[in-house]
Amino acid sequence: MGYELENSMALLERTPAALDALLRGLPEVWTETHEGADTWSVSTVVAHLIHGEHEDWMPRTRHILEWGEAQPFTPFDREGHVRYKRDKRLPQLLDEFAQARAQGLEELRALQLTTQDLGRRGRHPALGTVTLSDLLATWAAHDLTHLHQISRIMAHQVREAVGPWARFLGVMKCGGHSEAA
Amino acid sequence: MGYELENSMALLERTPAALDALLRGLPEVWTETHEGADTWSVSTVVAHLIHGEHEDWMPRTRHILEWGEAQPFTPFDREGHVRYKRDKRLPQLLDEFAQARAQGLEELRALQLTTQDLGRRGRHPALGTVTLSDLLATWAAHDLTHLHQISRIMAHQVREAVGPWARFLGVMKCGGHSEAA
Repeated sequence: MGYELENSMALLERTPAALDALLRGLPEVWTETHEGADTWSVSTVVAHLIHGEHEDWMPRTRHILEWGEAQPFTPFDREGHVRYKRDKRLPQLLDEFAQARAQGLEELRALQLTTQDLGRRGRHPALGTVTLSDLLATWAAHDLTHLHQISRIMAHQVREAVGPWARFLGVMKCGGHSEAA
Repeated sequence: MGYELENSMALLERTPAALDALLRGLPEVWTETHEGADTWSVSTVVAHLIHGEHEDWMPRTRHILEWGEAQPFTPFDREGHVRYKRDKRLPQLLDEFAQARAQGLEELRALQLTTQDLGRRGRHPALGTVTLSDLLATWAAHDLTHLHQISRIMAHQVREAVGPWARFLGVMKCGGHSEAA
């Protein structure tokens, strides 16, 4: 197993517990609010992470190993989190994310990927050729982009309450940068 | 105790455990690296959070209660984290942050602040008049701005490894926005 893959897995293992420690039991003013029309709440972000575990990272890993570039990935449905969120409250979503992530990592370990496997190519419907190594690094970076988003959604809720200090708080100036998932 | 203060305290209580769950035991490629010359590592951010507990939030709270606007706050030394970091490793910094935060919150609770107290004014050396309520909301928002920064520092380390996916990862496009502390 490559050095970079071990680093990614070390982060992937920790994200569910980190989100749990940050979010479980927090007042809903932090977790069920958003940044304006058509933006996500923290709970929605967690549902999106669950969705990724079930339909993105390990399914695409297996897709590359099975099909290579011969068949592009199924496009990821940006609204698919709705099916995972439904009327669930955040504690249940945190439990489901932890469970899905643990299972995904177990499946990843069971593949015993070699350096040669990591160089295998797949075809992304929008990005074209990608490698399995790219995909697995992106899995970890995707956790970080949503941690970044969560901190920004939460900070948005106190943008007035901080008074003149808003000027000194970088997170208040972050407009979000995502193009797609 | 005001509603907003309770919400801030709920977050302030959780940040040390969240950072601990995310960071303890992570490979140093995530925690001891930075975003380029004159930028901070994740460990440095944790040292800065310790510094804030000792020299910013509760000291300024007491300053407002004692002096009001009659005396401005002592300016916060942006490089003061160096005194708290020295040659300590991240696990020790995480322990010290958790300890300092728990103590700060205990002191805050002991003040039994009233709504009238929260409206009391102080003088920031650069921002001018601020209220105790502004200060305490900023304490929580400051945790979020550094969680935002930590996710960005870490994502920076895999900006090449993710290949073409960088385009879809908002955190990769966040240039940092802080002006001062």
